[in-house]
Amino acid sequence: ITGGPLARWQRTNREASIPLGLRQMERSGAVPNLRLAAGEAEGEFKGYRFQDSDLYKQLEAVAWEHARQPAPEYEEFVAESAALLARAQRPDGYLNSHYQVVKPGKIYAELEYSHEMYCAGHLFQAAVAGARAGTDGRLLDVARRFADHLVEVFLTGGDDGIDGHAEVETALVELYRLTGHRPYLELAGKLVDNRGKGLIKDSGMGMLYAQDHLPVREADTAVGHAVRQLYLEAGVVDLYLETGDESLLECSVRRWEDLVATKTSITGGHGSRHDGEAFGERYELPPDRAYNESCAAIASIHWNWRLLLATGHGRYADLIERTLYNAFAASTSADGVRFFYVNPLQRRSDLVEDAYLGRRREWFACACCPPNIMRLVSSLGHYLATAEPDGLAVHQYAEGRIVSGDVALRVETDYPWDGRIAVTVERAPGTEWSLRLRVPAWSASSSLTPGEDGYAVIRRAWKPGDTVELELDMTPRLVRAHRRVDALRGCAAVERGPLVYCFEQADQEAAVDDLALVPGAPLRVTPVDDLPGVGRTVLIQTDALAVTEPEGGLPYRTHHVATTTGVTATAIPYHQWDNRDGGPMRVWIPLA
Amino acid sequence: ITGGPLARWQRTNREASIPLGLRQMERSGAVPNLRLAAGEAEGEFKGYRFQDSDLYKQLEAVAWEHARQPAPEYEEFVAESAALLARAQRPDGYLNSHYQVVKPGKIYAELEYSHEMYCAGHLFQAAVAGARAGTDGRLLDVARRFADHLVEVFLTGGDDGIDGHAEVETALVELYRLTGHRPYLELAGKLVDNRGKGLIKDSGMGMLYAQDHLPVREADTAVGHAVRQLYLEAGVVDLYLETGDESLLECSVRRWEDLVATKTSITGGHGSRHDGEAFGERYELPPDRAYNESCAAIASIHWNWRLLLATGHGRYADLIERTLYNAFAASTSADGVRFFYVNPLQRRSDLVEDAYLGRRREWFACACCPPNIMRLVSSLGHYLATAEPDGLAVHQYAEGRIVSGDVALRVETDYPWDGRIAVTVERAPGTEWSLRLRVPAWSASSSLTPGEDGYAVIRRAWKPGDTVELELDMTPRLVRAHRRVDALRGCAAVERGPLVYCFEQADQEAAVDDLALVPGAPLRVTPVDDLPGVGRTVLIQTDALAVTEPEGGLPYRTHHVATTTGVTATAIPYHQWDNRDGGPMRVWIPLA
Repeated sequence: ITGGPLARWQRTNREASIPLGLRQMERSGAVPNLRLAAGEAEGEFKGYRFQDSDLYKQLEAVAWEHARQPAPEYEEFVAESAALLARAQRPDGYLNSHYQVVKPGKIYAELEYSHEMYCAGHLFQAAVAGARAGTDGRLLDVARRFADHLVEVFLTGGDDGIDGHAEVETALVELYRLTGHRPYLELAGKLVDNRGKGLIKDSGMGMLYAQDHLPVREADTAVGHAVRQLYLEAGVVDLYLETGDESLLECSVRRWEDLVATKTSITGGHGSRHDGEAFGERYELPPDRAYNESCAAIASIHWNWRLLLATGHGRYADLIERTLYNAFAASTSADGVRFFYVNPLQRRSDLVEDAYLGRRREWFACACCPPNIMRLVSSLGHYLATAEPDGLAVHQYAEGRIVSGDVALRVETDYPWDGRIAVTVERAPGTEWSLRLRVPAWSASSSLTPGEDGYAVIRRAWKPGDTVELELDMTPRLVRAHRRVDALRGCAAVERGPLVYCFEQADQEAAVDDLALVPGAPLRVTPVDDLPGVGRTVLIQTDALAVTEPEGGLPYRTHHVATTTGVTATAIPYHQWDNRDGGPMRVWIPLA
Repeated sequence: ITGGPLARWQRTNREASIPLGLRQMERSGAVPNLRLAAGEAEGEFKGYRFQDSDLYKQLEAVAWEHARQPAPEYEEFVAESAALLARAQRPDGYLNSHYQVVKPGKIYAELEYSHEMYCAGHLFQAAVAGARAGTDGRLLDVARRFADHLVEVFLTGGDDGIDGHAEVETALVELYRLTGHRPYLELAGKLVDNRGKGLIKDSGMGMLYAQDHLPVREADTAVGHAVRQLYLEAGVVDLYLETGDESLLECSVRRWEDLVATKTSITGGHGSRHDGEAFGERYELPPDRAYNESCAAIASIHWNWRLLLATGHGRYADLIERTLYNAFAASTSADGVRFFYVNPLQRRSDLVEDAYLGRRREWFACACCPPNIMRLVSSLGHYLATAEPDGLAVHQYAEGRIVSGDVALRVETDYPWDGRIAVTVERAPGTEWSLRLRVPAWSASSSLTPGEDGYAVIRRAWKPGDTVELELDMTPRLVRAHRRVDALRGCAAVERGPLVYCFEQADQEAAVDDLALVPGAPLRVTPVDDLPGVGRTVLIQTDALAVTEPEGGLPYRTHHVATTTGVTATAIPYHQWDNRDGGPMRVWIPLA
């Protein structure tokens, strides 16, 4: 990836976010806690019981970053962390600073909320990344010793416990892929099979919170804590990919279809409730109270990537794109040093109930999101294309090079600001093979015609220098929600290409909450080279109305009076919001 | 009160709810905990740290019930409870079973969430009720000893602590009114003055949760935990009533105006968020996730009653009526043995996220609501009328008698099913005096013309037998919400008289979520003598549409297709919902 927003995010991630994250590893307690566990320091354990996972995600980010572009400046951090982890690890392989330091008598006794396997999963993912990236190998030793301990206790040892927070399942499959050690896969399978049998004690959040209400193969709809469900789904599809158990793919696709149709924000965000960080009911999609946790967007991308690998269907790549450019991208400030945990679609002017006034923050007591964001940004290159039995498929478009075996492609595009994508073959075997290019479902028309799976297929004996051009329809779109989405009734949102737009107060002539969009009014595309605080963007402007209604007394009446004036309304890509002031913002605007 | 819904609620309360509540006093731990505190039993403390308050509210309900109609069957319960409380009380007057049994070293050390003064407040209210009703006087001794202890510690002792949960303020003023003991009033004043100075530690819920973010006189808007704010307001107005400190009335009225205009459900319910049981932002009024805690409705009625006493303005009586007949009345099942804690305005068909499927329950682990409901129902008679300097004002209408000094009135009406109210003077002094009758703001026209304060005033030298007739406009009304109420855009609700209606699945030809109301379609009034499960009611029917849209894929599109068929839609008073099956319900229906 050499150009466009993805390249910019990777640059900012490397130059600003990761250095910030590394500083936080000391400050937040993640590293000091491990020194306590290693018996090398004295003091109080700091933070949550899953504090170790912050370090693991940070190590994973650094590994992918190193793979992307050698990063000798991180060598010391990786080596020291791996060595510290090795020293903190118990002789039997167990490793969790919270339980070793604070509750040594409760190891594996509070799985409903202990996050012990959840942390292990993040360790495994960091180790796999380190191994693939060629960073310090001792991390893999630590990971394998812990994984072997889990196998001893929970697979061969016969303990039927499962972690209240799914995550280790997908990580175990990844560790199996790297090592070929089958017990890791078998343990992942057992953990998935055991879920939904009431084996998890109620942590006080109810049975649905941890998806323990129904066996994975029987559940029809995503429930409870969104991030848990979505990491679980990634593991479920991973298991299908390695075992071929169709029942796993079927149930996951069934829940995906329900989730997409009824529990997904226009930004791709998941989780409608602050209460329990939960999905909510079908069609419960409030813009103001949307939770849309940054981690849920990341877990959703993980899951959809595996579904794409399993099925080859472009609808999963479409959702990855929507989530990536909107729910996920909005989680980080333009300068890379502030993050959203929650990503709502509306901010009102009187956020008195929120101590942070609904703005991004540098870090969080529960800091699951920032290092998670960093590891995904560093690994964005993984999600662009796949080698296929008959060639190569391109799923996401960004300026750069795609290399797979003896095929090399150059992608030239100004995507997503522009819809023209030129793919040039740089290297190819002489034989005939297929180039598959995704045509996003949002594009009303395109220069190449996709099949039912959303991909245009061009089969030929490609020669170096051959070029294919794909042109997508970048006309701005006014979209409305299904009538069952109660919270969005009578409203419209603006999209262009893969980007969802929003209306920020900083750009308006009238109060954001007074705006009304006029159906059919032209949506004018206005590129801006460097909007202060934001950088390069494409604004969309339209002739709209400002509607005000007097306030006072109960707001429920048989008759209403309103005053209407014409204004220009200006929309900015949602992922670029909150980079100026803390004013009101809306994705969904009432229709006049 | 001899007829109409109020009389029925009081009968059901006495025959079903209170007996259930008394049984729960043993089962829930409230009474057994006090036996532990008294050193008369061994075992574990059961329930929350505010478990004592359940017993206090139950005792208050029994007292008002006894005042309404002698209840010798409760004598033993009252006497035994008072004796147990006296034995459990420490020699210094302190009384809280949780802190005495579980955390004796932490007394008054965790005021941010200890509920010690909150419980004391409910004890004082129970004792005041007992004293006024003539039930066991030992309760007043217990209450006064505890109140004296609070005075010693927090007033003369100089401790600046305040309870995280307001409630004791209004209770101390009530205790002062009964006893004339000024330190109680002074302590209430100090507690109100000290709020908003950051003296409450953050319990983890933030500064707003307990209204400690701003001094009471400076805060412009209701924030945080709704019940806490509303009990606090009752105390603030009580203090004004006893001290004449205008700054207290001013700030409370200012918040009232903001709250009514921007943070009140059509049912009078308060609190839009499950998260923190909080108000939420201005105009954040989701029907599905409305919290509208039953206790908030009760606290609101307490506050509005005091504002009515302070100002004589009918808008407070109007809101009492709305809250009473809707948010409050819905909290109890028709048979009086199941209760809502949360009173939303919508229930969908897939309440999988709720273990109780959104239905009323017999009791709760946190059982603040049921005994609170019972004490209000038993004391409904207090809210009907007031003696005025120049006569008598009738605020709420129900069949029955109103006696005040040498005036006695008979009220004959089938309110709220019918809008005709006949007030006949049974006894009167010979002199001239004013009869003030509230004309609700919802009545588009009426046979008597109200003044600006909402009251029709008839001044004469009344003679026994004189009758005044007030006829209110009971035409059903289709109301819409202010355009800033995002969650209700494009919807309408049906009201008739003081009753808000809802659409339950049990009465519909089509799915509730498919209904669309047709503006201007006649709203047909259909009285029903005895709807199974519900009892007497007045249904409203209208010709409506059933609109369905295909489901699948993301619910956000540029074009939508829908199928429309004509149906009859049937509405039932909101307070009578959930007395049949657990099907979907909506107060707000999309407009066609």
